[in-house]
Amino acid sequence: MDCYLDNAATTKVSENVYNCMSSVLLADFGNPSSMHRKGVDAENYIKDTRKELSRILKCEGDEIYFTSGGTEGNNLALIGTVLANKRAGKHIIVSSMEHASVYNPAIFLEEQGYELSFCPVDRMGHIDIEALKNLIRDDTVLVSCMYVNNEVGSVNPVSEIGKAVKEKNKNTIFHVDAIQAFGKFRIIPKNEGIDILTVSGHKIHGPKGSGFIYIKKGIKVKPIINGGGQEKGMRSGTENVPAIAGLGAAAHDMYENLSENREKLFSLKERLVKGLITLPETHVHALCIPENPDDDVLHEAILKTAPHIVSCGFNGVRSEVLLHSLEDKGIYVSSGSACSSNHPAVSGTLKAIGTEQKYLDSTIRFSFSVNTKEEEIDYTLSVLNDLLPILRKYRRK
Amino acid sequence: MDCYLDNAATTKVSENVYNCMSSVLLADFGNPSSMHRKGVDAENYIKDTRKELSRILKCEGDEIYFTSGGTEGNNLALIGTVLANKRAGKHIIVSSMEHASVYNPAIFLEEQGYELSFCPVDRMGHIDIEALKNLIRDDTVLVSCMYVNNEVGSVNPVSEIGKAVKEKNKNTIFHVDAIQAFGKFRIIPKNEGIDILTVSGHKIHGPKGSGFIYIKKGIKVKPIINGGGQEKGMRSGTENVPAIAGLGAAAHDMYENLSENREKLFSLKERLVKGLITLPETHVHALCIPENPDDDVLHEAILKTAPHIVSCGFNGVRSEVLLHSLEDKGIYVSSGSACSSNHPAVSGTLKAIGTEQKYLDSTIRFSFSVNTKEEEIDYTLSVLNDLLPILRKYRRK
Repeated sequence: MDCYLDNAATTKVSENVYNCMSSVLLADFGNPSSMHRKGVDAENYIKDTRKELSRILKCEGDEIYFTSGGTEGNNLALIGTVLANKRAGKHIIVSSMEHASVYNPAIFLEEQGYELSFCPVDRMGHIDIEALKNLIRDDTVLVSCMYVNNEVGSVNPVSEIGKAVKEKNKNTIFHVDAIQAFGKFRIIPKNEGIDILTVSGHKIHGPKGSGFIYIKKGIKVKPIINGGGQEKGMRSGTENVPAIAGLGAAAHDMYENLSENREKLFSLKERLVKGLITLPETHVHALCIPENPDDDVLHEAILKTAPHIVSCGFNGVRSEVLLHSLEDKGIYVSSGSACSSNHPAVSGTLKAIGTEQKYLDSTIRFSFSVNTKEEEIDYTLSVLNDLLPILRKYRRK
Repeated sequence: MDCYLDNAATTKVSENVYNCMSSVLLADFGNPSSMHRKGVDAENYIKDTRKELSRILKCEGDEIYFTSGGTEGNNLALIGTVLANKRAGKHIIVSSMEHASVYNPAIFLEEQGYELSFCPVDRMGHIDIEALKNLIRDDTVLVSCMYVNNEVGSVNPVSEIGKAVKEKNKNTIFHVDAIQAFGKFRIIPKNEGIDILTVSGHKIHGPKGSGFIYIKKGIKVKPIINGGGQEKGMRSGTENVPAIAGLGAAAHDMYENLSENREKLFSLKERLVKGLITLPETHVHALCIPENPDDDVLHEAILKTAPHIVSCGFNGVRSEVLLHSLEDKGIYVSSGSACSSNHPAVSGTLKAIGTEQKYLDSTIRFSFSVNTKEEEIDYTLSVLNDLLPILRKYRRK
């Protein structure tokens, strides 16, 4: 059996997305900046996706800017915001469990003379709001935190964070990396106090190389890629029309069936977690449950997390070894986060949430899509049940 | 008849490119950063394209870095280079006919405190090498010029420029925007003194959203997009695998048949120019020919230019009006450059090469691909022959 349980790393494009991209590639290949009909035809795909996204986020179309993906979006959000608001101060805050595409631009800014603070998170992978309040100063330009953590699937209380930020300093800009949340959560930036939101296409069965950033009207952001002035000057470069069209189709499909999708993903997650907690010496991260929880408690706890991500430590088994052993059985997972280009470093998130030493290098991330089948979960549990005792034979004492 | 003569704006993906992208989208959708086989399979496409490009440019594979396109590449070349070489000085030079994706990052750097000089060009659209030499100083970090001008199709004497740069200051980094040249010229960066080279995929029948930058080993460039460390840290973000695979296929096809392709394009160009110069009150830009040139003179002059671009002024006819009149007949062209997002501003290039006032807002760019047919050229000439007298009836006196 082939079980692709690495959907937080990337997803397969859906049939709708594929068909949409194909037709743009073959028929409507014009440059949207061209003044003739072939340009206009291409531009219409961009308009359609913009309209669809603004419908989903309940925002204006001109608050959406297309990017080449989540990483570019996060760089634009951090670097572009501080460049455009130099007078507001030189202090920025990010949480201590951010993805590298937020963490590293923050470090870049620190190198350029900005002051950087990290806001701690609790064991559930939630920002410590009191600590955040204490960190925010008069010269804090930007607070950035993720909606859903990519490694452990925790969900931040974004509205509360947004409220806390504005209470402490109404001029501080609040950026949310929603790369793992978009398509799985109903997100209305204006209701949650979000000024800037980053989204990627390839996490929601859309194309790689697609994404967008929402920037609330009135919030100043300076482009980091300058040129022909596309996207109202916010992101120059010939628009990747097939990718933008595919992104629109992907977003449409995710939100058209949001409730059913969430239900399905949660049920897969519950099925997997139920099995994992019966295995000896395992720990499911960022899930608030007692030992041997009853079904209702487990169900309620799971509903507070992201529906598609399960992160589990297997004491005494190195994650890389387990990953490849699972691969031999046709099960594809990640150790920590797959987005960090082949560097099997210890996860910042696991450390940030205070994970016990023994689970730091023995953790595996399972992540589902709506195409994942219950049989794949059952098969994975049965393979783990067989594998773990064998792998633990060789554990270091 | 449908004549797409706007191939300098963008090209249609070839059948090979389309098939290649399709198979990656459908079958090999993994994240190259994933440690399992689906990641490795995806990564192999990147390796293959890297190998193909390094074969074409006769460089090392690790001198190639994939980007989301030409604009990002040019931004990385300019901004990344000065950021990485702050000690070398704060002076940069670009030519006065650069594309917006070089011009605007240069202006951005000027705003950040760098000193910016513009190097003049002559009427043929060639950099004035003596002027350049006079501009280069001890603290000149970067000289940037384009290989082929996108609006008039002039070809810079890149080797000579590279030599002049290094003679004046061996530490000055030489960047070449080869977006309109790659696929039409044999480019060996090491032989031409090029330190950094920018290429885009969608100009050569590759995918939009694809491109790469060549950075000579030893040349320091700081990434402008930070994150998971992909592309050896030079360009973070999940690699756009289908686009990179398509770029490889496109580059392969262009260079596999380089001589035939060039011959075909030159012959189309000669056919069009021959017709254009017989029309009254027209001027073909950046072409060194006398009035009523004989065939040999014309042939030789054309061989000194880019094979796929013809820029022609039509006195007394506004370019926008002519563009739409041609569109009505199924002929798709650009006025000036199409890459500048719908802003029909007066072309910087035409001004820089000293174009007569009367042609500044009456110029049309025709650009071919290897799929362009002789009949399309003949049809276009016959349409122009009919249209121009009618449009000129309404000229402003």
